[in-house]
Amino acid sequence: MESVTLSLPEAYDLALEVLSANGFSADHAAAIARNVAAGERDGCASHGLWRLLGIVDTLRKGKVSPDAEPQIHDQAPAIARADAGGAFSLLAYERALPLLLEKARHSGIAALAINRCVHFSALFADIEPLTEAGLVGLACTPSHAWVAPAGGTRPLFGTNPIAFGWPRRDKPPFIVDMATSAAARGEIQLHQRAGKALPQGWGIDSQGQPTTDAAEVLNGAMLTFGGHKGSALAAMVELLAGPLIGDMTSAESLAWDNGAGGLPYGGELILALDPQRFLGAQAPEQLARAETLFMGMQEQGARLPGKRRFACRQQSERQGVTISRSLHDEICALRQGE
Amino acid sequence: MESVTLSLPEAYDLALEVLSANGFSADHAAAIARNVAAGERDGCASHGLWRLLGIVDTLRKGKVSPDAEPQIHDQAPAIARADAGGAFSLLAYERALPLLLEKARHSGIAALAINRCVHFSALFADIEPLTEAGLVGLACTPSHAWVAPAGGTRPLFGTNPIAFGWPRRDKPPFIVDMATSAAARGEIQLHQRAGKALPQGWGIDSQGQPTTDAAEVLNGAMLTFGGHKGSALAAMVELLAGPLIGDMTSAESLAWDNGAGGLPYGGELILALDPQRFLGAQAPEQLARAETLFMGMQEQGARLPGKRRFACRQQSERQGVTISRSLHDEICALRQGE
Repeated sequence: MESVTLSLPEAYDLALEVLSANGFSADHAAAIARNVAAGERDGCASHGLWRLLGIVDTLRKGKVSPDAEPQIHDQAPAIARADAGGAFSLLAYERALPLLLEKARHSGIAALAINRCVHFSALFADIEPLTEAGLVGLACTPSHAWVAPAGGTRPLFGTNPIAFGWPRRDKPPFIVDMATSAAARGEIQLHQRAGKALPQGWGIDSQGQPTTDAAEVLNGAMLTFGGHKGSALAAMVELLAGPLIGDMTSAESLAWDNGAGGLPYGGELILALDPQRFLGAQAPEQLARAETLFMGMQEQGARLPGKRRFACRQQSERQGVTISRSLHDEICALRQGE
Repeated sequence: MESVTLSLPEAYDLALEVLSANGFSADHAAAIARNVAAGERDGCASHGLWRLLGIVDTLRKGKVSPDAEPQIHDQAPAIARADAGGAFSLLAYERALPLLLEKARHSGIAALAINRCVHFSALFADIEPLTEAGLVGLACTPSHAWVAPAGGTRPLFGTNPIAFGWPRRDKPPFIVDMATSAAARGEIQLHQRAGKALPQGWGIDSQGQPTTDAAEVLNGAMLTFGGHKGSALAAMVELLAGPLIGDMTSAESLAWDNGAGGLPYGGELILALDPQRFLGAQAPEQLARAETLFMGMQEQGARLPGKRRFACRQQSERQGVTISRSLHDEICALRQGE
């Protein structure tokens, strides 16, 4: 397969150019370009430059605001709220982050509800600013109703990712970022593009029967990971980042899309916990316990979540990122605007 | 199998008598008796009256305080802390609950760290007082190092349950309570007692090889549910309810036990979120969205987490609880004290 290698600045500039040409405001374009370039850099193709296709498509369908200014509200002593006004989540998060950090450091734990945001991005990137600030982070968001509950046959839940981050001194953070579906929607779409069969257990067809055909799963329903436990976690994400923060469930998001094929629209919940407030002067000795845990995992060959991502990042910083020429061509074609 | 049926008051009284005869203070005995009788009532045999055997055993081994008075600390604006002083977690939670509720209602979200507690109880029971108060709850706790991380071969994590609860008006709450291990330790012990083979995927032997022999898994390692995703959640529980709150990981708990075979010792983290503070006047209409989600689950045959438990509860309230005569005999023998 023919490919194209871009330096990280080139990848960012290409994304920025595409987004600006299609009408995103400078601040939104920069936030989105940083995010997709970072996904590509970190070896996460399903949230990398490929996402530009869906982002521009969603804009052209009128399903995302290119320029809404986020409104930040001080909702309660330990709750911040950001109204994204129908734009992507990233700029709203960026603008609300200082208030979230201030509240977490004051109260010990704080929540940020991002409302009315269109969502395409990996939660990994929303956790990193928290771990960089020395905080523990948790985040989740519904998506579109693509996933059947355990024991059911029809889509109801989103892929509903959960992310968790733990800060480490002088080391990359420990960051988990996992769909509660057996696979990410983007992974299934990439299998479809590549004409590859899916692994068993990723989905069912429109009759509720197991299938490894990507197209049939996209028309039927994805499955959660881990049976009824994964399904319970998916329901938890619907509740926490839907009704609890006054925003849509995945079923409501898909209904709002009304067949346009745009990206999910709704809310995201982010929690930040400050180890300094939990532990006070004991923090250094207690955080050393976590390092012992990580050593115990690695000694027996278990991988630290997030580690592969940081290894890819180092490599990309030296060698740039490589995407297929066909994807590069598709992205470049978007530079013309509509 | 011969069995014995007890009314709910009889089950509670039997537990109370056993606990008092063995030296638990009145408040601790009442909190523990309520908990194990409730587990039995709710059809959760692995956290029912059977637990009295391990509870008394742990006391006789000197691995739990029968009478420590919990110390409650106001750690930060949104953090309460309860030092259980080496006793079981239940009384510490009971005493700290008013402060947790007050903080959650004031700040919108609050955390309770229970420290230095011995733990045997299902987290379900710790979530119910929150949903009864109209709050959303999350709880987790490490245990002993019994579970191998994904990609590893040796025990490192505990069974590390996560519980989540959502309050419902005029209906039993939605409560998830799940071990991040493929099964609860108690389930494996019950298979061993019954001489039954385990399902595939519950554990590995001391050589790291898959096995369905309960004894070999108890000597080897249990596995997490859902592969590397379940393993990542187990690690998250270690961190949140271990180092973050200044308490032991599952490996440290097992080392502290030092072969005595006592129950896990360490911390528990409980989060409470107040929908009223997140939503204000919008709360009723937003919480109706959750009911639509629950209806969507049930319409297609998916079970609501916690539903079976509340159905068992109703039945037990009418018919009492039934345990095997051999278990009843073992429990009655403990009434003599040591």
